[in-house]
Amino acid sequence: MESAKFAGLRQPPPDSGTSMYELVERLYPLCRSITGDGVRQTLQIVSQSIPLEIHEVPTGTPVYDWTIPREWNIRDAYIADSTGRRLVDFGRSSLHVVSYSVPVRARLSLQDLRPRLHVHPQHADWVPYRTSYYNESWGFCLSQNQLAELRDEEYEVVIDASLEPGSLTYGEFVVPGAGPKEVLFFTHICHPALCNDNLSGIAVLSHLAKCLVGTAPRYTYRFVFAPGTIGSIAWLARNEGRLDRIEHGLVVALVGDRGGFTYKRTRSGEARIDKVVEHVLRHGRESWEVQAFSPYGYDERQFGSPGLRLPVGRLTRTPNGAYPEYHSSADDLALVTAEKLDASLATCLAIVSVLEGDQCLVNTSPNGEPQLGRRGLYRKVGGHHASDNREMALLWVLNQADGSRTLLDIADRAGLSFWDVAAAASDLWECGLLKTHDGERLRAAARGGA
Amino acid sequence: MESAKFAGLRQPPPDSGTSMYELVERLYPLCRSITGDGVRQTLQIVSQSIPLEIHEVPTGTPVYDWTIPREWNIRDAYIADSTGRRLVDFGRSSLHVVSYSVPVRARLSLQDLRPRLHVHPQHADWVPYRTSYYNESWGFCLSQNQLAELRDEEYEVVIDASLEPGSLTYGEFVVPGAGPKEVLFFTHICHPALCNDNLSGIAVLSHLAKCLVGTAPRYTYRFVFAPGTIGSIAWLARNEGRLDRIEHGLVVALVGDRGGFTYKRTRSGEARIDKVVEHVLRHGRESWEVQAFSPYGYDERQFGSPGLRLPVGRLTRTPNGAYPEYHSSADDLALVTAEKLDASLATCLAIVSVLEGDQCLVNTSPNGEPQLGRRGLYRKVGGHHASDNREMALLWVLNQADGSRTLLDIADRAGLSFWDVAAAASDLWECGLLKTHDGERLRAAARGGA
Amino acid sequence: MESAKFAGLRQPPPDSGTSMYELVERLYPLCRSITGDGVRQTLQIVSQSIPLEIHEVPTGTPVYDWTIPREWNIRDAYIADSTGRRLVDFGRSSLHVVSYSVPVRARLSLQDLRPRLHVHPQHADWVPYRTSYYNESWGFCLSQNQLAELRDEEYEVVIDASLEPGSLTYGEFVVPGAGPKEVLFFTHICHPALCNDNLSGIAVLSHLAKCLVGTAPRYTYRFVFAPGTIGSIAWLARNEGRLDRIEHGLVVALVGDRGGFTYKRTRSGEARIDKVVEHVLRHGRESWEVQAFSPYGYDERQFGSPGLRLPVGRLTRTPNGAYPEYHSSADDLALVTAEKLDASLATCLAIVSVLEGDQCLVNTSPNGEPQLGRRGLYRKVGGHHASDNREMALLWVLNQADGSRTLLDIADRAGLSFWDVAAAASDLWECGLLKTHDGERLRAAARGGA
Repeated sequence: MESAKFAGLRQPPPDSGTSMYELVERLYPLCRSITGDGVRQTLQIVSQSIPLEIHEVPTGTPVYDWTIPREWNIRDAYIADSTGRRLVDFGRSSLHVVSYSVPVRARLSLQDLRPRLHVHPQHADWVPYRTSYYNESWGFCLSQNQLAELRDEEYEVVIDASLEPGSLTYGEFVVPGAGPKEVLFFTHICHPALCNDNLSGIAVLSHLAKCLVGTAPRYTYRFVFAPGTIGSIAWLARNEGRLDRIEHGLVVALVGDRGGFTYKRTRSGEARIDKVVEHVLRHGRESWEVQAFSPYGYDERQFGSPGLRLPVGRLTRTPNGAYPEYHSSADDLALVTAEKLDASLATCLAIVSVLEGDQCLVNTSPNGEPQLGRRGLYRKVGGHHASDNREMALLWVLNQADGSRTLLDIADRAGLSFWDVAAAASDLWECGLLKTHDGERLRAAARGGA
Repeated sequence: MESAKFAGLRQPPPDSGTSMYELVERLYPLCRSITGDGVRQTLQIVSQSIPLEIHEVPTGTPVYDWTIPREWNIRDAYIADSTGRRLVDFGRSSLHVVSYSVPVRARLSLQDLRPRLHVHPQHADWVPYRTSYYNESWGFCLSQNQLAELRDEEYEVVIDASLEPGSLTYGEFVVPGAGPKEVLFFTHICHPALCNDNLSGIAVLSHLAKCLVGTAPRYTYRFVFAPGTIGSIAWLARNEGRLDRIEHGLVVALVGDRGGFTYKRTRSGEARIDKVVEHVLRHGRESWEVQAFSPYGYDERQFGSPGLRLPVGRLTRTPNGAYPEYHSSADDLALVTAEKLDASLATCLAIVSVLEGDQCLVNTSPNGEPQLGRRGLYRKVGGHHASDNREMALLWVLNQADGSRTLLDIADRAGLSFWDVAAAASDLWECGLLKTHDGERLRAAARGGA
Repeated sequence: MESAKFAGLRQPPPDSGTSMYELVERLYPLCRSITGDGVRQTLQIVSQSIPLEIHEVPTGTPVYDWTIPREWNIRDAYIADSTGRRLVDFGRSSLHVVSYSVPVRARLSLQDLRPRLHVHPQHADWVPYRTSYYNESWGFCLSQNQLAELRDEEYEVVIDASLEPGSLTYGEFVVPGAGPKEVLFFTHICHPALCNDNLSGIAVLSHLAKCLVGTAPRYTYRFVFAPGTIGSIAWLARNEGRLDRIEHGLVVALVGDRGGFTYKRTRSGEARIDKVVEHVLRHGRESWEVQAFSPYGYDERQFGSPGLRLPVGRLTRTPNGAYPEYHSSADDLALVTAEKLDASLATCLAIVSVLEGDQCLVNTSPNGEPQLGRRGLYRKVGGHHASDNREMALLWVLNQADGSRTLLDIADRAGLSFWDVAAAASDLWECGLLKTHDGERLRAAARGGA
């Protein structure tokens, strides 16, 4: 029976948390940017778990209003004093170089070097993350403490990088579904040594994809691992003819820290995915909040641009800019935990479970309540005060299954969880008290569910 | 003039409270269930005040998904010890036997008897109310104190009841109106010795019906006194062809206790009756609250089933399950008061008054305000700060009587009572400043009202 | 460039506050009523600043449900004791005579005079303001202290007034715009020696009109200075055929006191002017609140009558009846300040600025975000947490400029000020990233603005 496929889907496989944390650890040392070998290596490592289709978009390719930039690669970079001692060293952290810095090899006084040095505005021992993708420049990032140690002398400044024609790389993985409609999961892969932003997103989505392999779902699930902004724009431009297949979408990022969940709504705020994610968070165990859409953040802004208006929301834990370690060296391996990665995966699985199992059912005995007692669905002795969730779910499904609402709509109106309502629907279906409009079968997750 | 008919309608006749309380006292000793002679006797007593049409629906009659069960009657029941002393005695309270218990005559050890004994989970000296309508069984209800006194000996257990082909009984009373549209008032009559639930509903609706006799109202008022669930389902199934006449409906029950009012909205939550009842409660003297519809409670669930979707709300004081005495022997003559029954009747009368008087009127002088001063409708000396309710009602009616709103809509927007607005409309009508769309006369309650 | 016309429009000319206060001082001694020479003199003084077109509507003219009354003029009035000493003297304050009192010349005992004497109900030394426009009568207003001094003797009572065929006078001033659509500003001119109610409204609207002269605006701005109620009704009746030109309207009155702003919404509460004024107040410096429409107040009730339903809101500071000095001699030159008049004028100018500059623009590069960096519109180094208002405004305009929203709609959704959004739109327009549907040019205030 197909119900078995999704039974227990909401529960991640054992050791998922550990496995995701180990992936984060493994990806951490690589120097990623919006192009280059760091991105390729990252995608190769992910491919060991789910075989990604790798796409290379050549430098100079127009993608909507943008053009794929030259490819950036870096081998080494440092600031050394007159004794040759490296005071700032790319070898210690890829954050030390402003991303996309042009090659440099010079001797500079501190005074001339100073405008090229970026420090964290608040924390003396944190190295900030800075980029200069589309403005040809170079620079170093270091801690305030490092800066304070720089004397007024001449420094050897080296950025052994290349900025040359090449390509932008992204990876895609598809779990084929029964119908043409797709669910899109997107995460950005362009940040260097930052764990929550966004090795967490890579880890959770790659494991989510693996969980769905072999489930033969209703929807086709498409996972895109691409650089931020230019990557989603390139993907959109190259898939323009098939965007209307996207029924629901979610940008997943920043999902490894200890904060609760934040869901950022789609541009319209009224997409089905908004309702689904909010339901899952409401019935979950962690604190959560909802943000209205705004055109600032991650790739949801591209999916929500006025020409595309795709129903793509965004799931994070603490969102961009809202935690002190954001975009600094403190977004490290200590900031994310296996437990939180696991709970984020479970949340994504619950979202999939609702998407798969939601369905519009119709009461076959709609005049008055059907007699549940003779079907063994109701307690035998009456007169008690209150009904339990199971009985309430039965009554709500019967009352609301009039063809205008799905099981999720019913659950939200009843204040019950989707899974309680789906279980009740399954029981009623077995008794012949529910039907579909079109002779469709009862959907898996509506029958099963953990 | 027809206005006289409804003048003072909102005020119950003197001694209504006492009369209702006396009816509760008289009905209290009868053993009611969903069928049987207790129900028939109850309806006969009500018929002394309003001549009910009694309907008998034979056992075995299919009514939607249900079948009319066998008729249950009981003559005697007890648990006696070896000395013949009756430790639990149906003669003392009809609550002592699980409703619809099959006949029993046996000698049982305490151990064997124990699973058949039901006590109140919280209160040691209360007897709970339990039923087993559709599951053939038997049992006794007793207090925890009574149970504690039972020694480990053999008991004589007798339930002298019959469960045989017969019929289900309900009563109906109609006050004919000018047009075909109906207002339905329903109350359940199946509970034994419980005063608030629901001798209070029987008392209030029978007196409401009596108040309406001879008023020649706009609507036809139909009062149905029937057993819960199976009774409303039977009534619906037998009246299916005429359900579209029901313009507004109200289940009235649990209206004698000392709590404020609770109104439970119709399934859609947007029916006219919702607006009417909430207006009446808002402008009444007692505390009140509103509940969303849910498919758990009394017969509103049947009227609100997805195949019928009738605009039927529910008015109670403290609702089912929300007072400790609910469904126990403590729901007795001390729980209900003549004063509260009277105020419940007044509230029902106010609801009828709004239903009768609400009307869509049109300002005949809609450009700018008409000059009220020369018509004697406005104070003579100007410059004062504030207008009183009467003047505000005049201004609101004139401003809003544009054909898109009824007097009730205007009252709600203005924050004034329907009766203030109706009185203003009456004054404006007399001056020729209002008309109806269709040449209809000004409605009674809009003119009169106490 | 036309943008220059509205650049800085939001800032009143220097000394506007002083100029408005001086106008209030000059108008204060005149005895105004709904007709008569006091009104004419008031309009003549205003005409020295903006040349009003004066309209005279003859006594007896029907205007909707009303008739223009006889004209009232007063030369002198007093209550004198037997020694000839004037105890109440119109010469000291025009408030001392009930407005529209018929002529009187009599000797009366205190007992007979007493019913004709009006005092302030709360404040012993304040003289109240009373009228008897449409009920032929006479009376005096005096302070409680003055009343206490009246002994039980015979008084000489003189009201040297005339109530004769004449006309009702109102003034109009028009700033012609590019198109046929009009913005209406209305203020009442019928109150005697009351500064806030409503010399403040006269002062602010006459200065607003002067500011708009020569700006060649998009809308035609029509300023109407007329008596309350009968004046707006007369104006409406005489302009019935052109009322459909009124796109937005505002009654401005009581705008000189020290209170924050109160905006009273149009009858529908959903007019564009409601959104505009609330936006301006939300982004202004003063406290403010919004009131729902009600049919009590000033001339907004006439514009909002059910036959006309014009989109006319009302802007005051402390509204009618909500300050203790209202309609009394304490509404004097100390109650209003040049500073508050100036801030009221600035608020009106900001409202005009939004009305002029609001526009529906369309993103020409709607798929994904356009690349702002290469157009010099975005900071060069990335990675910082937060975007500033300017960058956010750019992103919001791009995201929301889909042809379904105006700049004001975008500003409200973004939580930014209209002027920030208009400035961003101007920058994007210059880059070719925005267009209009119809080839229209970018509107002035959207480009400029202070």
